[in-house]
Amino acid sequence: MSRKSVLSLSLLVLAVATPLTAAAQSEEPRRGFLAGQWEDQRAIEERFRAIPDPARLREYMEYMTEEPHIAGFGHGSKRVADYALEKFRSFGLDAAIEETEALMPIPTDRHVEVLGPEPYTLRLAEPGVPEDKDSSDQGLLPSYNAYAADGDVNGEVVYVNYGIPEDYEKLAELGISVEGKIVLARYGRSWRGIKAKLAQDNGAIGALIYSDPEEDGYYRGLTYPEGPYRPKWGVQRGSIMDMPIHPGDPLTPGWGATEDREKLTRETARTLVRIPVLPISWGDALPILEQLRGTVAPNDDWKGALPITYHIGPGPVTVRMRTAYDWQVRPIYNVIARIEGSTYPDEWIVHGNHHDGWCAGATDPISGAVQLMETARGFGELLQAGIRPRRTVVFALWDAEEWGLLGSTEWAETHRDDLGEKGVVYINTDSTGKGWLSFAGSHTLERFLNEVAGDIEDPERGVSLFEAARARRLETAANPDARREIEQSDDLRLAALGSGSDYTVFIDHLTMASLNLGFGGDSPGGVYHSNYDSFHWYLKFSDADFVFGRALSQLIGTAMLRLANAAILPFGFTALADAMETYVEEIRETHAAMESPEEIDFEAIESALEALRDAGQGYEESLAGLSDASAEAVLANVRVSELNQLLYTSERRLGYDEGLPNREWFRHQVYAPGFYTGYGVKTIPGVREGIEEEEWDAARFYVRVVSEALSSLTDQVREAERIVASLR
Amino acid sequence: MSRKSVLSLSLLVLAVATPLTAAAQSEEPRRGFLAGQWEDQRAIEERFRAIPDPARLREYMEYMTEEPHIAGFGHGSKRVADYALEKFRSFGLDAAIEETEALMPIPTDRHVEVLGPEPYTLRLAEPGVPEDKDSSDQGLLPSYNAYAADGDVNGEVVYVNYGIPEDYEKLAELGISVEGKIVLARYGRSWRGIKAKLAQDNGAIGALIYSDPEEDGYYRGLTYPEGPYRPKWGVQRGSIMDMPIHPGDPLTPGWGATEDREKLTRETARTLVRIPVLPISWGDALPILEQLRGTVAPNDDWKGALPITYHIGPGPVTVRMRTAYDWQVRPIYNVIARIEGSTYPDEWIVHGNHHDGWCAGATDPISGAVQLMETARGFGELLQAGIRPRRTVVFALWDAEEWGLLGSTEWAETHRDDLGEKGVVYINTDSTGKGWLSFAGSHTLERFLNEVAGDIEDPERGVSLFEAARARRLETAANPDARREIEQSDDLRLAALGSGSDYTVFIDHLTMASLNLGFGGDSPGGVYHSNYDSFHWYLKFSDADFVFGRALSQLIGTAMLRLANAAILPFGFTALADAMETYVEEIRETHAAMESPEEIDFEAIESALEALRDAGQGYEESLAGLSDASAEAVLANVRVSELNQLLYTSERRLGYDEGLPNREWFRHQVYAPGFYTGYGVKTIPGVREGIEEEEWDAARFYVRVVSEALSSLTDQVREAERIVASLR
Repeated sequence: MSRKSVLSLSLLVLAVATPLTAAAQSEEPRRGFLAGQWEDQRAIEERFRAIPDPARLREYMEYMTEEPHIAGFGHGSKRVADYALEKFRSFGLDAAIEETEALMPIPTDRHVEVLGPEPYTLRLAEPGVPEDKDSSDQGLLPSYNAYAADGDVNGEVVYVNYGIPEDYEKLAELGISVEGKIVLARYGRSWRGIKAKLAQDNGAIGALIYSDPEEDGYYRGLTYPEGPYRPKWGVQRGSIMDMPIHPGDPLTPGWGATEDREKLTRETARTLVRIPVLPISWGDALPILEQLRGTVAPNDDWKGALPITYHIGPGPVTVRMRTAYDWQVRPIYNVIARIEGSTYPDEWIVHGNHHDGWCAGATDPISGAVQLMETARGFGELLQAGIRPRRTVVFALWDAEEWGLLGSTEWAETHRDDLGEKGVVYINTDSTGKGWLSFAGSHTLERFLNEVAGDIEDPERGVSLFEAARARRLETAANPDARREIEQSDDLRLAALGSGSDYTVFIDHLTMASLNLGFGGDSPGGVYHSNYDSFHWYLKFSDADFVFGRALSQLIGTAMLRLANAAILPFGFTALADAMETYVEEIRETHAAMESPEEIDFEAIESALEALRDAGQGYEESLAGLSDASAEAVLANVRVSELNQLLYTSERRLGYDEGLPNREWFRHQVYAPGFYTGYGVKTIPGVREGIEEEEWDAARFYVRVVSEALSSLTDQVREAERIVASLR
Repeated sequence: MSRKSVLSLSLLVLAVATPLTAAAQSEEPRRGFLAGQWEDQRAIEERFRAIPDPARLREYMEYMTEEPHIAGFGHGSKRVADYALEKFRSFGLDAAIEETEALMPIPTDRHVEVLGPEPYTLRLAEPGVPEDKDSSDQGLLPSYNAYAADGDVNGEVVYVNYGIPEDYEKLAELGISVEGKIVLARYGRSWRGIKAKLAQDNGAIGALIYSDPEEDGYYRGLTYPEGPYRPKWGVQRGSIMDMPIHPGDPLTPGWGATEDREKLTRETARTLVRIPVLPISWGDALPILEQLRGTVAPNDDWKGALPITYHIGPGPVTVRMRTAYDWQVRPIYNVIARIEGSTYPDEWIVHGNHHDGWCAGATDPISGAVQLMETARGFGELLQAGIRPRRTVVFALWDAEEWGLLGSTEWAETHRDDLGEKGVVYINTDSTGKGWLSFAGSHTLERFLNEVAGDIEDPERGVSLFEAARARRLETAANPDARREIEQSDDLRLAALGSGSDYTVFIDHLTMASLNLGFGGDSPGGVYHSNYDSFHWYLKFSDADFVFGRALSQLIGTAMLRLANAAILPFGFTALADAMETYVEEIRETHAAMESPEEIDFEAIESALEALRDAGQGYEESLAGLSDASAEAVLANVRVSELNQLLYTSERRLGYDEGLPNREWFRHQVYAPGFYTGYGVKTIPGVREGIEEEEWDAARFYVRVVSEALSSLTDQVREAERIVASLR
């Protein structure tokens, strides 16, 4: 029998190997539960899953999107926070607003004009849509990129395509420099902050970022209000803080903004861009693009969907950009609700979603926030029925995520000691729609999450969320190999987390095991970060009857209940070893394909991974040995608490105190957002980016760091295995 | 030593294995010449190549493009024919206009309007460009598709993308029918006649074909007159006769139009479309496309570059089309010049290019026609110096090519007996520009053509045309395999001929070995078949100083001189076997990839190919044995004439008298335009299309036909080899 078969067999004992629909939910205990304990848990879960109510999701959303609620600007964010606080309390939860603060500049001047050949003054505004009252609210924030610099510059324009590293390589090849120019980049293919950083690093004096209709406009489908896609004057707002250095308040990196410690200044802050940058609509970009001449777009990849011949320039069109901001430190309102655990109050299951939005923010973030509130209501109802979770659960509605994950980052930095000691799992949601569940997070939770997804019914397809997602992955598999891999796996592989939402501080900085969940794939994009991300849009084009919202609440509530009540926390380690093996393989291939790379010896990581896999399998076998153990006896064993602590702090072993090169805030050695990709993940980042940037010493150094982290994790897993064995 | 090495060695003796630049032209005899004969030939060729003169090419073009010269309409075509006749005579050639006729309908009514939702009457006209006097000539032909039917229809519109078979498959998958609808198809990916045929076959009542800017408009580059690409109101005219059935007069398939034989009627003609069809500009298509709703374009492949969301419909937009034609039989003026051969007057080397154009036709066809005239002038000068070719050479300026290869087809059908007996090679040119030589034609001439190209200097790159083309192929190779194949071959592989120009009747119907040559790759498209294909455009964007035109004349003149004077005609047979092997391999792969194909046994073709390769190699070895033979003795041998006849009739063996299924006019069993691709070639068409269409019996039948043709050719090659051996 191969080791893999032994493993499968062992999983069959303590858990289910093949997920089932909710209707056919098996009687066998789920991962983490003992035979004598599962029936009670199952009843609690079923009771919970009957609670989330689409009508309430809709009611919360309608209220929370009625006024713009950007953090720090106007009263909307506080209004939403107060509403959520009141709701949490009405559910019977212990809730409070935990206020913090951060540097949050609001524009006082925005002016862009084409000086010639044909003059044009940019509109820089999104007109209201008559049928959508929320699209023309007076309190709407001007369109801008948060943390861009004050400035008044003019110069020739250079079109830089997406403005990502490969585009600058192409420009260099063509002999075109952006030094002293204003770059015009289109949204897409990377997080916007990278476009600003690269423009600045390449010597540009200003940058405009526009939404080409190829990305999310008429090229994709009909535009708002007839269809869901971005209209001519639609603008994508968004932060361009250099978050791959660190998110959170630019002036308090690594510590809570309200701590008694001297802040950095704007001059010493590392995450502020030094040039003016503004986002614009394609309506405003067209008068610039159609006047550009010089080099023609070198290939189709450089062409968008506007009715012009795309040119790179430089010039002859020249533009003046003038911007100014008030550079105020503003308050942030995190709304935190908690239920103290009955047995392990010092083990925290944290679930968060932000509540601030650039405008009405129906999809981003209210679609996810209302799910969280409804999940919290479910826990409140159970509590009122006398059902208290064994571990502490925390519900957090973060503020100021849009600016750079400010609320979650400052809160977690403030509570870093508590979280380091007590944090079991962080579960994040954000924008959600309809379609299929996306799976992302720590691989130590892969088996657990697959199992939970197998127990929740898809609202449209009569199968479980797991089965629906699996069918979707098979249908959209990029190639036969990818398809075969899905077919041959019991579980769906979790995507690795990069950045872009509030899980960042938990996984990357505090190295708490984390998940990020939501529905997508069948809800169109097109109004992201614009005035049109409204209740009206959501009802017309997304999860109009809120059944996917309910399913998400059922999923997350079930996951939280299992994590809160499990006898043995449902972590596992073989999926992590498997995932890391594919990452190492990718990095090896990158390295092998380089022109003249220095030698990198991956042997240390590979043998560490082999040891981790062995330990992980040993742990699974040892768990299987508990199948007929008495639940009472096990739960009464004094070592269970020690075991669980070993399990939930396992992810801590993957942190490295010095962090990554030039960005010590990022401590996780398996997952990180790429330094030059922004939100996009770079797995095993120390090694991968070292190789990509040809920093050979760094790459070799991080091979050692990662290997040591893996060995330390392996020791911890072996210790857990020994304790499990002792519980029989 | 492998057979391949033996072959290379043998080639080294009689010919040069690696082509050289003209400057370094070696003293070794070229293929077909004996040692004692080559010096004279070489002197003649050098003398010839000094003659073609860019100033004259320009002068001819300026005159010939000064007025529109569509065949049958107005006096332009006769004016050009008379000019060419006068020129040929002034060069000292025996020339005449050979008049024929064909059905050539001219529109008497064209009206298209959008009935709603938003009414719009289509412009159907190309405005003049002020800086280009020829773009607004009063004699310009209205934009239309020749041979479309009279009609007055109205109906909902369905957008069918390119209107090719795979698009109709996608429509079927989406449950959309064009039955009773008017289809809107975009130009591109196939010859336009296929779009009309498929619209009709699928039940559409009318068709509009428009030029999407993605194909040749602003998406490619700046538009005329600022740039070379098709402007908003530019229209691509063109014939939609069902040429894959047969080209030429629709009323006289297979026989000369002026022969004393009853013509078909419009009702019995097989190549006339039965529905109204018109070509339109994107300016006229946009008001239709932007009002289409219903199904959204299912993927990016269905999207063009217009600033809209592409929908398929049907409707709600409805269109009325009204068209009428005069259905006249009109005169056609082929201009034929000839020089009787001194030794073999009954062996003809024919070179042709058409002279009619839809409008001013500077690129299409005058760029090629002026080359032919200048080449003829070179032969005239030699003649006046007492240098007469040993074989007869014929220069033909065809009329009415644009309508469906009318002039060349009727001429060749009229002279079918002479050509069958005497036709050695047909060399075609048509539109030409600047860039790199394109190589296409009968593989029995592959080695010969490569060698000639190695002796002509590229006008820009200081290397031979062969070397420039080879470097270009390496640079643009699709993948490493393709690159390796080029690197490992001595010769550049000829492309197989489909259709689309006047070689069609020669190769496909009469099975005369043929070549089609021209320069491209560095001259932009965009004004094809429009009023803007003018002298002004040509000077601004194409071969403005006519140096590529001169190089083409040098190339073709050299090739004609070699063919005319060779002791042993420079045919070869191993390249044909190699090329056919790749075709068989492609067909095998298609067959293997089908869902449930019936068995096809390729063994007969493969063993026939093996035998042909052996015979071809034997022939080369036998030629090598002549290296030290006395030229005088060989030339005096009575069997040389028999040998040459075997060589130049070798291509006849690849014909099959019953032709291809449903199109007996197409007799060649290796090359044919695809029944559903139009111009695009289908090699080994009987077998390939039988398999593609799942006509298994037909496929098996043509396996036998092709195998027998190959065996017959092999016998002829073996006979040639025996004669060569006897010449030593």
